[in-house]
Amino acid sequence: MHNPQLNKHGELQHLLTTEGLPKAVIHHILDTASSFVSIGDREVKKVPLLRGKSVFNLFFENSTRTRTTFEIASKRLSADVINLNIAASSTSKGESLLDTIDNLAAMHADMFVVRHSMSGAPFLIAKHLNDTRQNHVHVVNAGDGRHAHPTQGLLDMYTIRHYKKEFHNLTVAIVGDVLHSRVARSDIHALTTLGVPEVRVIGPRTLLPGGLDQLGVRTFHNMDEGLKGVDVIIMLRLQNERMNGALLPSAQEYFKHYGLTPERLALAKPDAIVMHPGPMNRGVEIDSAVADGPQAVILPQVTFGIAVRMAVMSILGGNSGEA
Amino acid sequence: MHNPQLNKHGELQHLLTTEGLPKAVIHHILDTASSFVSIGDREVKKVPLLRGKSVFNLFFENSTRTRTTFEIASKRLSADVINLNIAASSTSKGESLLDTIDNLAAMHADMFVVRHSMSGAPFLIAKHLNDTRQNHVHVVNAGDGRHAHPTQGLLDMYTIRHYKKEFHNLTVAIVGDVLHSRVARSDIHALTTLGVPEVRVIGPRTLLPGGLDQLGVRTFHNMDEGLKGVDVIIMLRLQNERMNGALLPSAQEYFKHYGLTPERLALAKPDAIVMHPGPMNRGVEIDSAVADGPQAVILPQVTFGIAVRMAVMSILGGNSGEA
Amino acid sequence: MHNPQLNKHGELQHLLTTEGLPKAVIHHILDTASSFVSIGDREVKKVPLLRGKSVFNLFFENSTRTRTTFEIASKRLSADVINLNIAASSTSKGESLLDTIDNLAAMHADMFVVRHSMSGAPFLIAKHLNDTRQNHVHVVNAGDGRHAHPTQGLLDMYTIRHYKKEFHNLTVAIVGDVLHSRVARSDIHALTTLGVPEVRVIGPRTLLPGGLDQLGVRTFHNMDEGLKGVDVIIMLRLQNERMNGALLPSAQEYFKHYGLTPERLALAKPDAIVMHPGPMNRGVEIDSAVADGPQAVILPQVTFGIAVRMAVMSILGGNSGEA
Repeated sequence: MHNPQLNKHGELQHLLTTEGLPKAVIHHILDTASSFVSIGDREVKKVPLLRGKSVFNLFFENSTRTRTTFEIASKRLSADVINLNIAASSTSKGESLLDTIDNLAAMHADMFVVRHSMSGAPFLIAKHLNDTRQNHVHVVNAGDGRHAHPTQGLLDMYTIRHYKKEFHNLTVAIVGDVLHSRVARSDIHALTTLGVPEVRVIGPRTLLPGGLDQLGVRTFHNMDEGLKGVDVIIMLRLQNERMNGALLPSAQEYFKHYGLTPERLALAKPDAIVMHPGPMNRGVEIDSAVADGPQAVILPQVTFGIAVRMAVMSILGGNSGEA
Repeated sequence: MHNPQLNKHGELQHLLTTEGLPKAVIHHILDTASSFVSIGDREVKKVPLLRGKSVFNLFFENSTRTRTTFEIASKRLSADVINLNIAASSTSKGESLLDTIDNLAAMHADMFVVRHSMSGAPFLIAKHLNDTRQNHVHVVNAGDGRHAHPTQGLLDMYTIRHYKKEFHNLTVAIVGDVLHSRVARSDIHALTTLGVPEVRVIGPRTLLPGGLDQLGVRTFHNMDEGLKGVDVIIMLRLQNERMNGALLPSAQEYFKHYGLTPERLALAKPDAIVMHPGPMNRGVEIDSAVADGPQAVILPQVTFGIAVRMAVMSILGGNSGEA
Repeated sequence: MHNPQLNKHGELQHLLTTEGLPKAVIHHILDTASSFVSIGDREVKKVPLLRGKSVFNLFFENSTRTRTTFEIASKRLSADVINLNIAASSTSKGESLLDTIDNLAAMHADMFVVRHSMSGAPFLIAKHLNDTRQNHVHVVNAGDGRHAHPTQGLLDMYTIRHYKKEFHNLTVAIVGDVLHSRVARSDIHALTTLGVPEVRVIGPRTLLPGGLDQLGVRTFHNMDEGLKGVDVIIMLRLQNERMNGALLPSAQEYFKHYGLTPERLALAKPDAIVMHPGPMNRGVEIDSAVADGPQAVILPQVTFGIAVRMAVMSILGGNSGEA
């Protein structure tokens, strides 16, 4: 099947998922991001790469934090940004999703940054734009349901590369509610593509999905065992709605078994880094001593995230739209 | 009576309604828009005509779609845009409308784009600004109650001129809920001024206003009769709240009598164009085969709408404020 | 105690309160604002002083009016502005305030404009940024609880200086609900620092705080007595929630005793000016004849407010972050 993310030259046309994203494309994004990291320290934090382009933040699901990162990235590329909270808009007037999309594309949009509670919505939009030859619009998935959050996955890869230089010799553990996590899914695909030899997931049976073996992932239910000798620990956020539900007895019980404490962190390699996509639940999935400790790289992740989003958007903006 | 839209040189000072707007002014707007249409295709979609000007989107009634078109138009003119959702703001604190207006004008605003559920609100604001000699602020009506939506009327004229070149030999049909439609009202005034010899409205008795004869408009209750030989069909959106109400038996029943199907479209001239202000209710006022068919110019309307709004705003921005 | 607003060179690092703000710093802000007042009249109302800087409007409490003034000020300084309504965002996900702050700072923010219902929140944020050496971010207090609203205080000083030239010979009366007013508190501190020899507060016992004598302020419960011979009258807004409460019998009763009418205004000096922070309750704290009369400088306050905010932000943006 044709990869809907790439144009006929094999270049990035949309960013929808890290699954099937070629290794060379990932490295190109990370290399490009690298040149943007330093921009954040400059007096004038702007480059004119998307000047005069219109970026639409289409948030069908509210997420101030993610919207903000894309808004900043767009503005630092000198794009014009339009924020649309679509839940409160046309769809409530009974217009179909694709009519809304066609309408916005007709305003000469250049990019749609799409957040949607429904898995697959950004794919549907990208496919429709390709099918109707509205190739001037690029789609960036900013999180769809439980499916994918590719810019988070890519910024995690950037962070790992920054601190560990190479991927081929790493053991990476992803801890927590993998079942409901689009971040975990995006990380696993990217880590595998980049050649990480051992990816582990750690969590209670109720929060791990089936079929992880087929992705080449090792499963642990005991956190102490799972953390032994790892280079990278990616903690996942425990959604509030899981805490008192059928899947978990309580937040306290979860912390007892899967919270990252200094004692547990000591089981990993001495130079292991600790990551978290935020927002953190201190005392639920992570102890404050770890979150604020020397091995945590949680705030650098945020900084790198801006650069990675700038990279993705500038690459898309520069590529031909011929699918 | 002095036309409150024009300054003492007969130039556009505010855009409040297409009623009484001189033919020369309309053509000037359409000609100016023409020069902006191509900008949308450029790499850098910006011109510096309103650089350093402050445009306030004052939306007393929520409308993401219309707000977006003005926001894009403003940004492509390089203006600074401030979005104000006023319903949630000062008026809830008991401040009067005109105090709010004075306050914003004192911030050195250059333009107010006003959407209000009350017919006449933009007039009231423009009159107050003129009376108090706050002539540096221009008002654009972005839809007031059932009264007027002049930029929609003008973009409809642009679309008709684009496809039909001339107005003096056309028959134009407006179909649907004319009674509640500010779009219909703005279209009728503009079409009449531009010399369209035959304007028809088609709809059930409950959704057509009285007094249409005096505007030189022919009324039809039978759609097949009304569509015969027309050059342009403007479909109106049926508001959801009408569908189960006292005025109409049901959406299905409405579609049966007034929905635009391929069969009905065949009654018009073979090269007739189909317009709709959006958002569409597919299967209620229009069949998908027509909406997506070769005679529909609904998406070009959206594209032209940006150019027309850029034209209106750049003309206002360049005109002296002496009323 | 070290003044948390100043860096080690005694320059403004954060603007948190007018209390303890050195006289020289206040005059520097007012002088700088003076150069920005004329910008509002220019064709291009922009200067590039904050180009490429990122200003975050962090509004934990909704205030469209104040947010708008900061947004305009930022844009006229060419900054990129990100509006964050935090109430609806991360804090609802259980993230702590300081984690949110660290997160946004990691995006290379340059300035946080903070509005919070909790007195002291901007201090807490500034202290945290200083303690964690995130000195690249400057904090501007845009109103915290009943505590302070320093930019309003400073624009009031600008207005007084504009009309009265000197502070050392003035009598200034502040009228109304001083107890709940952060504006009153910010004004009193600034007036005292600038050497105003007589500051009066006028209001019912239930709406005046204790301890005013220690601030060098004279208290009046009878408005006629309090207004005698004053140069400047600052009316305070009466919050709606006070009007039918335990503290006041009714809005009518309040107006009878403390509403500023033309008769009462005549008790002040003939060239006294009337100020109000807005939004006004006409007929409650102020008569329309006064609000719209020749002595009112309420709209100039708004205009000066933009210039003062531009001054504060440009000064902060130019100062070193070393605390």
